[in-house]
Amino acid sequence: MRTLVIIAHPKYDDSTTQQFFKAAVADFSTVTWHRLGASINVERERELIGQNDRIIFQFPLYWYSAPAILKKWLDDVLTSSYATGDQFALQGKELGLVVTTGDAQHDFQAGAGEQFTLSELLRPYQAMASKLKMTYLTPLVVYQFAYLEQDQQQRLLVNYQQYVTNSAFASFTGQQQWFGEQLQQLIDRESDETRKTRLSAIQQTLTDNMDAIDDLNWALKLMKNKEDD
Amino acid sequence: MRTLVIIAHPKYDDSTTQQFFKAAVADFSTVTWHRLGASINVERERELIGQNDRIIFQFPLYWYSAPAILKKWLDDVLTSSYATGDQFALQGKELGLVVTTGDAQHDFQAGAGEQFTLSELLRPYQAMASKLKMTYLTPLVVYQFAYLEQDQQQRLLVNYQQYVTNSAFASFTGQQQWFGEQLQQLIDRESDETRKTRLSAIQQTLTDNMDAIDDLNWALKLMKNKEDD
Repeated sequence: MRTLVIIAHPKYDDSTTQQFFKAAVADFSTVTWHRLGASINVERERELIGQNDRIIFQFPLYWYSAPAILKKWLDDVLTSSYATGDQFALQGKELGLVVTTGDAQHDFQAGAGEQFTLSELLRPYQAMASKLKMTYLTPLVVYQFAYLEQDQQQRLLVNYQQYVTNSAFASFTGQQQWFGEQLQQLIDRESDETRKTRLSAIQQTLTDNMDAIDDLNWALKLMKNKEDD
Repeated sequence: MRTLVIIAHPKYDDSTTQQFFKAAVADFSTVTWHRLGASINVERERELIGQNDRIIFQFPLYWYSAPAILKKWLDDVLTSSYATGDQFALQGKELGLVVTTGDAQHDFQAGAGEQFTLSELLRPYQAMASKLKMTYLTPLVVYQFAYLEQDQQQRLLVNYQQYVTNSAFASFTGQQQWFGEQLQQLIDRESDETRKTRLSAIQQTLTDNMDAIDDLNWALKLMKNKEDD
């Protein structure tokens, strides 16, 4: 799976969040990091879309929506003749959103400071995915990045990596497999034999754990079937 | 009440709908017709906002939202220091939306072509009005203007005029009063005495009708009060 991350951030260079995200996926060869600038080359954008399976819009929430720069991209690149009409050029691809906001999660609900949930506020993108015959992924929303503790940042890093590179990030099994693949790549790249051996030991443990979980799931299933009898 | 109509339409000159709207309010001195162009003079925009009580965003629906040109306006003009933070410069004003769309009303619902209602898709503007401490007016949505019959266009014309100029367009009494005022203005401007007399007769009929409706409402209220006893 190849992923195109389209970043729409008017103050990109000042954004520690965007630097954090960029570093998180720097080692993934399947990821194309694509910052939007002032001018848009429609043909080039469509080439990039064609080369990728997952398209991610990554932006800070400005007035409950993406900055104007992304709206211009949508208006210019996704014309009806290309995106719907005859071609449906994005059909079958996935649409992801990585949204950062300076307000807290509890503000995004009825009666609180922002009145609506992100699910509600992002409806236009969901409607668009539906119109384009794309699969709409659950948005990855990062609330108040600046206030995250070290361990929360670590978790976000892995969640973000999976959101961008894991074709099955939403399922537990998909997440386990992804970890296994990451570990295998680390092992392949490692030249120090001692470290290689330690990594292999971790990999063995991970595999054992997965087998144990499979056994437990199987046992649970049997019990549940009996209950349903 | 003074109204600022901010038009964000990339193909304004080709839009018969926009010409129709413009003609509809051409005679109203309380309306400022303001087309957005490529560049935005933030100070000038804020002056215009300051001079008006009702702010209307008027645009065709592009990907379930306003064209990029309006998003840029929001991002640039409504900075936090001006629009929230210290000043809340738009507090107490009204926010209206006039939205045109090429799709039919029945497409905007769950399971239909567009999946969501306009109420849902326009949530970002509603959230913004709330944040700015503005009153959010029920949007005026025009579906498939090109397919409207002559009499539907006539009705739309009056609805639009009221949406832009009537401070109480949502109530029946407010609408009646508005009609009375329009008629009075026609009478004041009319120089031909025969026509003036005919208009005055219509005005008298309108006043009589309003009195009759008041009486009926009063009678209904009494009956309802008895029922509730």
